[in-house]
Amino acid sequence: MMKVKEFINDEYLAEDKLLRAVESFNVDYCLALDEGRLYDWEKFFTEDCLYIILARENFDAGLPVGLVYCEGKAMIQDRATTILETSMFAPRYLRHFVTNTFVRPSEDGEIHAGANYQLTQVLMDKPAATLHQVGRYVDRFVLEDGALKLRERRCVYDNLLLENSLVYPV
Amino acid sequence: MMKVKEFINDEYLAEDKLLRAVESFNVDYCLALDEGRLYDWEKFFTEDCLYIILARENFDAGLPVGLVYCEGKAMIQDRATTILETSMFAPRYLRHFVTNTFVRPSEDGEIHAGANYQLTQVLMDKPAATLHQVGRYVDRFVLEDGALKLRERRCVYDNLLLENSLVYPV
Amino acid sequence: MMKVKEFINDEYLAEDKLLRAVESFNVDYCLALDEGRLYDWEKFFTEDCLYIILARENFDAGLPVGLVYCEGKAMIQDRATTILETSMFAPRYLRHFVTNTFVRPSEDGEIHAGANYQLTQVLMDKPAATLHQVGRYVDRFVLEDGALKLRERRCVYDNLLLENSLVYPV
Repeated sequence: MMKVKEFINDEYLAEDKLLRAVESFNVDYCLALDEGRLYDWEKFFTEDCLYIILARENFDAGLPVGLVYCEGKAMIQDRATTILETSMFAPRYLRHFVTNTFVRPSEDGEIHAGANYQLTQVLMDKPAATLHQVGRYVDRFVLEDGALKLRERRCVYDNLLLENSLVYPV
Repeated sequence: MMKVKEFINDEYLAEDKLLRAVESFNVDYCLALDEGRLYDWEKFFTEDCLYIILARENFDAGLPVGLVYCEGKAMIQDRATTILETSMFAPRYLRHFVTNTFVRPSEDGEIHAGANYQLTQVLMDKPAATLHQVGRYVDRFVLEDGALKLRERRCVYDNLLLENSLVYPV
Repeated sequence: MMKVKEFINDEYLAEDKLLRAVESFNVDYCLALDEGRLYDWEKFFTEDCLYIILARENFDAGLPVGLVYCEGKAMIQDRATTILETSMFAPRYLRHFVTNTFVRPSEDGEIHAGANYQLTQVLMDKPAATLHQVGRYVDRFVLEDGALKLRERRCVYDNLLLENSLVYPV
């Protein structure tokens, strides 16, 4: 085991702690969405945030337009209010599964991170659980008052078509 | 990186170690079930344990009844014996995928924890792998003789209907 | 929390660091495949590696034959070149989800490890994301020049049949 211990040095551990913090952030983020607490959603973002749900084809081609496009926390709040107070849609259960998380610390103080996600859905009139959306988070985090916040989150989905409509955030 | 290092303090690390222990517990737990070692299943529980598989609708409404309801380790043993020795069912492959794990240490010595799970299934006469059950573990752990044990595990599933029957534990 | 702190001792931490290193390896490995960087695929293996994709039924019976069978890094390179330069197949998006990772350090310097994986697929003429392959990695790692390398990776899949053909590695 000695060779292994040498391999796992302090530099490795510094990155590992940051990775764990990002994983923990994503657990809290997904729990809020899965439990329908959309008014808590904004607290994961900075004031000047960018939140986009877009197709992998567009992302790969460098095209910005997405299914959902929020510039700034006010648009996040607006979307949460719209969903909870005014939208009409069939009831459903959602659940996020986040794996393959990584971080890439940069010199500019931002933390570049990524992860793969699955969003499963159960509609009240279709009893099976389905893979509603599969993709990856492309994120930039910053530290604000000692806590991680999303300055940018791009949800890049592989699906060519989303069965039924996309109502809740990803 | 300095700001990040300050952020990752000792308190964070204490919780992180506990989280890793729970994740490791779940890996062992799922491996026993996926390999069909049901006689090992009981060793993950305390004598006075509670193990329930119930619908999300019932859980959210505070209703206790579930598909499977075991009070105490003897009922866990009984169920394992029933499945392995007396039940008739179509052969199948199962596999657990556990993500989004978190812990909430409490003052009373119990460790409240949770995670999202997917249970995939392959039936011998239907060659595709399907999402058999999607849900979350709602757990209470205690330490017994230096090892984590489940005092309570609730498997709260999102599916409204489980395709085919539920045979093995979750 | 005192009991918990005693429980999480140095021995636990040494294994935990190794586990994190394997998880990080798998994230990089899957990212290379998901992004189609197949020429990077070989760098994850030793010269004398073994890479096999085989059915769970064969694995359980101790039978070696698989869908894909590569002995040595040259066969890995050959396969990558074949896929990228000469094969004809329908375009598709793939994504790996790796969970339930564990390590079992051994006395011989090899690191035995395992994990569960899902490989999701989106075909350009079938818009939904599907569970293309579900299974587990059965791995043996070694340390080469301070980095983990796969001496053996067996991708043991549960599916009885893979929808459409298997083109890319797992």
